[in-house]
Amino acid sequence: METVSENRSHGGTQGVYRHKSTATGTDMTFSVFVPDHEAGAKLPVLWYLSGLTCTHANVTEKGEYRAACAKAGIIFIAPDTSPRGEGVADDDAYDMGQGAGFYVDATQQPWAPHFQMRSYIEDELPALIAEHFQVDMARQGITGHSMGGHGALTIGLRNADRFASISAFSPVVAPASVPWGEKALSGYLGEDRAAWRAYDACTLIEDGARADALLVEQGTADQFLEEQLKPELLAEACANANIPLTLNMRDGYDHSYYFISSFLADHVAWHAERLKA
Amino acid sequence: METVSENRSHGGTQGVYRHKSTATGTDMTFSVFVPDHEAGAKLPVLWYLSGLTCTHANVTEKGEYRAACAKAGIIFIAPDTSPRGEGVADDDAYDMGQGAGFYVDATQQPWAPHFQMRSYIEDELPALIAEHFQVDMARQGITGHSMGGHGALTIGLRNADRFASISAFSPVVAPASVPWGEKALSGYLGEDRAAWRAYDACTLIEDGARADALLVEQGTADQFLEEQLKPELLAEACANANIPLTLNMRDGYDHSYYFISSFLADHVAWHAERLKA
Repeated sequence: METVSENRSHGGTQGVYRHKSTATGTDMTFSVFVPDHEAGAKLPVLWYLSGLTCTHANVTEKGEYRAACAKAGIIFIAPDTSPRGEGVADDDAYDMGQGAGFYVDATQQPWAPHFQMRSYIEDELPALIAEHFQVDMARQGITGHSMGGHGALTIGLRNADRFASISAFSPVVAPASVPWGEKALSGYLGEDRAAWRAYDACTLIEDGARADALLVEQGTADQFLEEQLKPELLAEACANANIPLTLNMRDGYDHSYYFISSFLADHVAWHAERLKA
Repeated sequence: METVSENRSHGGTQGVYRHKSTATGTDMTFSVFVPDHEAGAKLPVLWYLSGLTCTHANVTEKGEYRAACAKAGIIFIAPDTSPRGEGVADDDAYDMGQGAGFYVDATQQPWAPHFQMRSYIEDELPALIAEHFQVDMARQGITGHSMGGHGALTIGLRNADRFASISAFSPVVAPASVPWGEKALSGYLGEDRAAWRAYDACTLIEDGARADALLVEQGTADQFLEEQLKPELLAEACANANIPLTLNMRDGYDHSYYFISSFLADHVAWHAERLKA
């Protein structure tokens, strides 16, 4: 693991790191904020998965999470959204290929060789983090935005024993039922929709996945709300499964980091409470 | 005045606007954050002047000031750092020309036709702001970073009747005595150093300018500290003039927005107290 940069910020260290990933076969870059802490202490972790077109940098620069993480004593990790580079397949559209990994393990060509973001986020990166940072891997939470909200919900629901707290901002709650998701899941996984059910928060819940609670933040002026996000489908799935869902509809807020940064500190505090930080 | 964008954020509206400037003869872009407020209320204003290479966008995206401004009920204004465009003189170096206006009214060629940033910030933009926003121009504070810290100190000191509060982050406190400033002031104003004295916080104080108090934030790991910033020169000038200066040296912090964003909310609160927001 190579250090790209480390900057002191908000009573902690904001780092950016790079490593050769076995899962994706590429170099992968991620950011980690570590609050100042007592020597030897192990801190809980909050994962943040980013949305379409983003890298680790968007939330790292615009997310306004550091003050809240320093106060709560939580390590904040922001991975990239896909493999990248010259030898990696791509698509001209912003919603497929590089910057759009959708947190799946691709089975279809030309994506399969590198687009293994599920394995990367669920297995490889946690092992690397546990090796290099003072983390308590028994206390993990996960959140994310848009495509990354989909990632947080699905990774959290599939691994409910690992994630004590799951939240999301403007998530794609039902990718199997909306244009972004239908394009990505058919491209990465093929046309057999049975293979999609493990990558859709709503079908995961239908198929028995459970969480103690979910927190979702959604702007009412989000330009993707009606066509791509459809939080009402998650509300219905949670109601049917008796999963307590707090769905905060925020009047006039859109899909941007101006929205995320307004409420990310609230989410950090919500996770901290559940992680006993 | 044209609206470029408006986004709801932190209980207010973050806007970006563009207008044709008479002072610079170019289109100029700036950002304004307006907290929610009672109809008819007039809010105090905090000006933020940015540093070399920056536009309005850097602090708008990375500054983490909105929560504090919403809490205090303060309007936050971030202008650009120079005129820009194809017909505007420029220099290959990052510290001269576009992105590096140094908040002076240039008298030398090729700069004089457009580089009138003193008049733009002191006169033209305040009039535009007063016309279009619910501001109480009797309650103004000013701050800034690096070259913009120089701008905040010099504009504040020259107009102490207008600015009830003046602060700065990593300011160029004595441009007449450091490489960045010597290059800029000789280029924009010519070699007669008498003309430079109105554009240097330390010489302004030597020449009689006063403020009730100054607040300066400075990282100890700032790569420009020893050669370009020299806060000790401001400390000496303030001591000689009996100006109360709070100089916060922040251990391990650098020159970046990771530093600024860590303390900008503190500065907003400091200004708010003085502006009775």
